[in-house]
Amino acid sequence: MDSGTLFFLAPLGSITALIFAYIFHKRMVSQDEGDELMREIAKSVRTGAMAYLKEQYKAVLVFFIFAFIFIGFLSFVLKVQSYWTPFAFITGGFFSGLAGFIGMNTATKANSRTANAAKTSLDKALKVAFRSGAVMGLTVVGLGLLDISVWFMILRKFYGNNFHIITTTMLSFGMGASAQALFARVGGGIFTKAADVGADLVGKVESNIPEDDPRNPAVIADNVGDNVGDVAGMGADLYESYCGSILSAAALGAAASVSLSLSSGTSFNLIILPMIIAAIGIAASVVGIYLVKTREGADQMHLMESLNKGIDISSLIIAVLAFFVIKFLLHNTGINYINIWVSMIVGLFAGIMIGKVTEYYTSFAFKPTKFIAEQSKTGPATVILAGLGESMTSTGFVVLIVSAAIVLSYLFSSGFDIANISLGLYGIAISAVGMLSTLGITLATDAYGPIADNAGGNAQMSRQKEEVRERTDALDALGNTTAATGKGFAIGSAALTALALLASYIEEIRVALMRIADKTNGIITIEKETYRLTSQEIAKLDIVSLMNMYSIHLLNFRVLVGIFIGAMMPFLFSGLTIKAVGRAAGKMVEEVRRQFRDIKGIMEGTVKPDYAKCVSISAKAAEKEMILPAVLAVVTPIVAGLILGLSGVMGMLAGALGSGFVLAVMMANAGGAWDNAKKYVESGEHGGKNTPNHIAAVIGDTVGDPLKDTAGPSLNILIKLMSMVAIVTAGLIASFSLF
Amino acid sequence: MDSGTLFFLAPLGSITALIFAYIFHKRMVSQDEGDELMREIAKSVRTGAMAYLKEQYKAVLVFFIFAFIFIGFLSFVLKVQSYWTPFAFITGGFFSGLAGFIGMNTATKANSRTANAAKTSLDKALKVAFRSGAVMGLTVVGLGLLDISVWFMILRKFYGNNFHIITTTMLSFGMGASAQALFARVGGGIFTKAADVGADLVGKVESNIPEDDPRNPAVIADNVGDNVGDVAGMGADLYESYCGSILSAAALGAAASVSLSLSSGTSFNLIILPMIIAAIGIAASVVGIYLVKTREGADQMHLMESLNKGIDISSLIIAVLAFFVIKFLLHNTGINYINIWVSMIVGLFAGIMIGKVTEYYTSFAFKPTKFIAEQSKTGPATVILAGLGESMTSTGFVVLIVSAAIVLSYLFSSGFDIANISLGLYGIAISAVGMLSTLGITLATDAYGPIADNAGGNAQMSRQKEEVRERTDALDALGNTTAATGKGFAIGSAALTALALLASYIEEIRVALMRIADKTNGIITIEKETYRLTSQEIAKLDIVSLMNMYSIHLLNFRVLVGIFIGAMMPFLFSGLTIKAVGRAAGKMVEEVRRQFRDIKGIMEGTVKPDYAKCVSISAKAAEKEMILPAVLAVVTPIVAGLILGLSGVMGMLAGALGSGFVLAVMMANAGGAWDNAKKYVESGEHGGKNTPNHIAAVIGDTVGDPLKDTAGPSLNILIKLMSMVAIVTAGLIASFSLF
Repeated sequence: MDSGTLFFLAPLGSITALIFAYIFHKRMVSQDEGDELMREIAKSVRTGAMAYLKEQYKAVLVFFIFAFIFIGFLSFVLKVQSYWTPFAFITGGFFSGLAGFIGMNTATKANSRTANAAKTSLDKALKVAFRSGAVMGLTVVGLGLLDISVWFMILRKFYGNNFHIITTTMLSFGMGASAQALFARVGGGIFTKAADVGADLVGKVESNIPEDDPRNPAVIADNVGDNVGDVAGMGADLYESYCGSILSAAALGAAASVSLSLSSGTSFNLIILPMIIAAIGIAASVVGIYLVKTREGADQMHLMESLNKGIDISSLIIAVLAFFVIKFLLHNTGINYINIWVSMIVGLFAGIMIGKVTEYYTSFAFKPTKFIAEQSKTGPATVILAGLGESMTSTGFVVLIVSAAIVLSYLFSSGFDIANISLGLYGIAISAVGMLSTLGITLATDAYGPIADNAGGNAQMSRQKEEVRERTDALDALGNTTAATGKGFAIGSAALTALALLASYIEEIRVALMRIADKTNGIITIEKETYRLTSQEIAKLDIVSLMNMYSIHLLNFRVLVGIFIGAMMPFLFSGLTIKAVGRAAGKMVEEVRRQFRDIKGIMEGTVKPDYAKCVSISAKAAEKEMILPAVLAVVTPIVAGLILGLSGVMGMLAGALGSGFVLAVMMANAGGAWDNAKKYVESGEHGGKNTPNHIAAVIGDTVGDPLKDTAGPSLNILIKLMSMVAIVTAGLIASFSLF
Repeated sequence: MDSGTLFFLAPLGSITALIFAYIFHKRMVSQDEGDELMREIAKSVRTGAMAYLKEQYKAVLVFFIFAFIFIGFLSFVLKVQSYWTPFAFITGGFFSGLAGFIGMNTATKANSRTANAAKTSLDKALKVAFRSGAVMGLTVVGLGLLDISVWFMILRKFYGNNFHIITTTMLSFGMGASAQALFARVGGGIFTKAADVGADLVGKVESNIPEDDPRNPAVIADNVGDNVGDVAGMGADLYESYCGSILSAAALGAAASVSLSLSSGTSFNLIILPMIIAAIGIAASVVGIYLVKTREGADQMHLMESLNKGIDISSLIIAVLAFFVIKFLLHNTGINYINIWVSMIVGLFAGIMIGKVTEYYTSFAFKPTKFIAEQSKTGPATVILAGLGESMTSTGFVVLIVSAAIVLSYLFSSGFDIANISLGLYGIAISAVGMLSTLGITLATDAYGPIADNAGGNAQMSRQKEEVRERTDALDALGNTTAATGKGFAIGSAALTALALLASYIEEIRVALMRIADKTNGIITIEKETYRLTSQEIAKLDIVSLMNMYSIHLLNFRVLVGIFIGAMMPFLFSGLTIKAVGRAAGKMVEEVRRQFRDIKGIMEGTVKPDYAKCVSISAKAAEKEMILPAVLAVVTPIVAGLILGLSGVMGMLAGALGSGFVLAVMMANAGGAWDNAKKYVESGEHGGKNTPNHIAAVIGDTVGDPLKDTAGPSLNILIKLMSMVAIVTAGLIASFSLF
């Protein structure tokens, strides 16, 4: 077998993923949806979610049309980008949206079926919920790898072995995926948290009715929000990380091939390597998904073990198979295949470690969350301070893990020759691919969370027996932990992917420069220096020389200003989204209060509240408020680039990566810990429910909600989207910047 | 007159400052200290403050002894640093401590005298408070400039015109000042906020007694805290920024001289230029201080105008005089003196602009703080979210102002030749000097705040007439605004200074390399490359070549990991200090509750609470909790350097600067806005005092307290201390790092 044949594992893997997603979906749909009331509730949630998603996609479509015209202008009028770019951009956005849609469609169908299965047994409920989550996981990896393999095959027809052009062109489809993901995350995040905060503030705090109580007018909006935010948003987010890591690894593989003067066969192998690892990951994920099961009366620990078993075995399969694949692709090429394999393992392992740290900082089995819960004794202020303090401290370990992963994957893949920069950077990208290789199953555990949460809501609202609700509660509690570890994983992979994108950026600069050289017959002026370089010579320039030409060093004032602006962006972006949630939640609070006041009989349960009104408030707020942050994320790299030039853009990307990564970890852990501290108090500690301590803990949770579900997860996308915009506009900036 | 004579303006200016500080202090002391009760309260506060400061200095002394031994080991055993370094380090720490001590000593004497003066008139009270603040302002600039001029004179005797060695050696005394400042800020910040939060939570929220009520056992501790945190801490902080900006400008001036092959006369002029600007600033500040006065019944706006008039006129005087001085020093040298002057003006102006933005985001005259106050209608959670949202958004403008200052000062001073990097960096440092040139008066307005605050406390506790308390309240309210703008100013100047220190770091690397070359007869190995370079040749290497030798570019994996770790440090550090405050405040809450419970008659006002116990809780907590964050700040750059090398350290400094600057702005503005939102509610808006809305606003203020007074301001020092540690250990890392 030759590696050209092996490549077909990638499309094959992607189709396998989609087939299994279809199977899981079909089986789930064949389950009983429960009684009349359960169906009705599920239908309200589904209708609300689909109506919102439709509106969101309309707004996104407008953005995509403008962006398509802009990128088309760059490609066809200014001729500073490849002709393929606008089309690649569109497919990325389309598939990302499709993955989100399929995942959410599945989730909204699975809610009542999970609740109904909980009537039978815990295991059955777990399987329905988890395998529905798996539909999402497998759809994301399936569509991602499909898009990548198809583009790779198309572009090979046109460019043959000119891998450098092929891979840098493909990178641009990441911008489409990132842009769509940002809208999904920000819009979905605002939707869900406006509803959640509004429902909690009036329902739990003011009127003292329990969570998911059907008397609360915002309860359907809250459930809709779980689907549009946590399912569709998360799916689009990881779709984009997944593609970004594979694409940047491919681009860096192509770059390494040129700088090490490798044969075109070896280049091909380096480029398809991340795609094959992804394909293996899909197979391993399917196996892992089948391993997740439980028995009746299982406790939290056992349920978690069951999920972990699935993930661990998948990881093990990937680790073993990847060894043989990498050996097959790289032996006798002069590249030490064991070292590349170790880089991949480093990423895989770092992902698991980040999950553990996140669990430590957010689960009430451990000291930090216990401390936060204890601080409820002195009121909400100390709960907030404890949460801020613990979550800020937690960034230390996560950063150390990612730092260690970067250092180790670089050192191994470069063969411990730190000057071998192109292979070292390739190794960092491969470690990101390794971390994300288990995405099929890890995303399943993640998407499972909101399904279980909604199933609980369904059971509560349809007034199921105590025993049913106990089962859905058990699944939901587990979902909180997987959501927190899933977030840690999303952040860690985003950091590594963004780093790989930063490294790929220099390759886009190279291609832009080659294009300029072709136009000017090899006479190019950079930073007031004039060079005589043909595009062939530029293609062979080593990375460091290229960076020196553009003064991309740490005392270039444009790099420094870029770092400042980049470091500020995640804060500004978070500030805008948090304020948006605050405004929308304020409206929701007023509406819920109004309904309690004006609609007689709600509190007695004799009259149904106007759920649709609350859904529409969330939807309108989300659509309106997602525009400014998203536009800012797209426009800033372009404006900064036009003023500060390529070196300023690189500084900006590095600054945004540094502060965005840390801020995202902090927000995710703060929100998770406050949520679980509240649950800990509700479990009877520190006075239990309906005490001032409980109210203090609920306030903490409410503050954490937009941090962990709106601003925080959007930051992962922000740093990648900014990189992607920079990549797509590299040609523009190279030709037209002020400095 | 030659420039050698002109230099004596620097020591002259410093002595002038100290003389005026002495005069103001003497006049203040001659004022009547008020009645028996006022004296007694003032004495309690003074005794508590002095006792704590003594303990703090003891702890700091232990640290300094260890650090002195370590630096001595570097200098005399490993011989990787100048022999002068340990001694310069010590004097920096000593003078910083002395400035804090004098400022605090003055403040504690001024409290009751201000309260007593308020019996006569508002103007008299303002003058006593403000001129006592001026003692601090003038002491800081006086001692700072004195230390610098004396060291400059001493080192010139030994090294003559070898300015490069002189200035890089002098930089190391900044490490002493930074280390002492960090202890003062962190210790003082923990002390004051433990007391403040504890007093507020039990007093205001639980027991419903007003602020500064003598029945509150923590009230004296709270007043002591204002002095040790806001006065001594702030003084040490700005002492260190002030010296850092002058020293780094001098070092970059020396570097520019070498790289532009300037005559030794011109070099001398470039080096003394920042010192002379500082001397002019002192004279202008004294004039400005005399202009601050008010009339009876003046409103907030008028009081603010009066302070602003003082600052504006000082700024104007500096701007005009600096033009002539810079012209005198630089005409006929080939350097465009107008451009350098513009760089200075840019800094001066940026400082004023940052103050305006801070005012906008923290004063309740404007939309953001009004919005936060309005959110109190939906409870504490929405108050917190609004504060986080607004303060995160506020970072945008501040970063843009500082970015514009960097770009403009670089462009002008480099004569719009972006390749003229050494002169451009000198310009950035000069803009920092420009921003801090008004420190004599701006620090006076800052130190005035806690004095007015304490005077109000004194008046309240000694049960003065309504009219006296109205006057002290007016002064206190103004103090809140000046404290917020002062913080913005401290952060902005810290960012510019840290940037200048980052640029100076490369000069320390150069000197370290020269030392190595001298030992190895010019054969040096860096990044596995071997060079043949004599120390004379290294001295003349341009900055970019030097950075290329060490691969200090943005795709070096050590730089990237450095950026991650650097970006994380401010978060970790803030997390530790916030948790420390939380723990200490928890103890304070328990103690206050215990006293209310156990000591009969406190609430009736018949029995005095045990104030000393609360003071001692704050003091012990501060002493214990300041160790870990401070040690972390010192150790991290050394450990990171030993593992990642010089390029990693530079990445770390850039990362810490980026995220630390933005986080500090956010924390300061969040805290200031919450504080004023509470005051806005207390003024009668949204229901006024003793409503649920008021409690929500108080909770916001309580959360903001440690952000704005402990963690936030410490970050300014953190980023500079990390730079200073890196500078002092550059020789160690250059010789002994792993990579």
